[in-house]
Amino acid sequence: MIRPWDILDTRELADYRIFRLQATRKVNPRNGHEHEFIVAHAPDWVNVVAITADRELIVVEQFRHGSESIQTEIPGGVMDPTDNSPLEAGLRELREETGYAGENARIIGKAFSNPAIMHTTTFTVLVENCRKFHDVELDQGEDLVTHLIPLDDVRRLASEGRFGHSLVLAALYHYELDRGAPLTG
Amino acid sequence: MIRPWDILDTRELADYRIFRLQATRKVNPRNGHEHEFIVAHAPDWVNVVAITADRELIVVEQFRHGSESIQTEIPGGVMDPTDNSPLEAGLRELREETGYAGENARIIGKAFSNPAIMHTTTFTVLVENCRKFHDVELDQGEDLVTHLIPLDDVRRLASEGRFGHSLVLAALYHYELDRGAPLTG
Repeated sequence: MIRPWDILDTRELADYRIFRLQATRKVNPRNGHEHEFIVAHAPDWVNVVAITADRELIVVEQFRHGSESIQTEIPGGVMDPTDNSPLEAGLRELREETGYAGENARIIGKAFSNPAIMHTTTFTVLVENCRKFHDVELDQGEDLVTHLIPLDDVRRLASEGRFGHSLVLAALYHYELDRGAPLTG
Repeated sequence: MIRPWDILDTRELADYRIFRLQATRKVNPRNGHEHEFIVAHAPDWVNVVAITADRELIVVEQFRHGSESIQTEIPGGVMDPTDNSPLEAGLRELREETGYAGENARIIGKAFSNPAIMHTTTFTVLVENCRKFHDVELDQGEDLVTHLIPLDDVRRLASEGRFGHSLVLAALYHYELDRGAPLTG
């Protein structure tokens, strides 16, 4: 019932390091109306649900410059050109940001970060039985600390608004969907 | 332990209707390194978990120009300047996109859409006992259709990847957190 939109033309607007912007004029198949859509093209992103052998969730706290506030998140970041897969990117981010590594790593979900205005996918990587093996290796533009949260507390903290990053909430939901049960008890 | 970053200067980069971009130079409190952050400033957004009297979730299907694909989402959209609150914006979007209205409307969650690069909050609005009261009123640049999904099927469909919009997954998780139970049985 939903039909494709005919494209009239596409033009590059600008390239801003974190994304490049394109404007595309299209025709609405419902009414023939012309409309211009601006889309941000960015590399894919990974978020890592990393669980320790003691059933704790590894979280990172950092000051976020979009929200201008300190956020409690899970490890993650932009895929590098040298990453061969989202899984590899997730394990790299986990190691660099927290020093942890683990077992049974796998992709448990993916979704467009914001399909209305962005062309980028966020992958959720699960890593289990994590232990601290390495020193952290933060980028020059990063400052973050690692904490461990008992899995049994995650749902309560999420209910209280502790996780203020929508993509982190989506990753935690992927984890609950993968388990087939809520994060309680 | 996480300290604020001193701001050196901020400059406007551009205004692109859907957001305006700012670049801010800051000093990393960890190492004194200067770094420039680009931030998109956009109006807040609402996503609406709308439940019918028959315990169905109201979803909308539309072609999304960021992902270049048809997405199954929940009603929602950008707050208008005329909306007095996120709640009002949610009820307006629900009415315009689907023709439905309901009872017990309230905010059940909020999170930054992407605090790494955007200054904008997405609110999750819950509306219960919804019924179709109105004709749909689509914008010139919209084409969407409404479907009803039994609540009991939502978790399975989410597990299968049916909801490809991260902010919709975050809203469904807000709904599960608000219920205090998973969407099953």
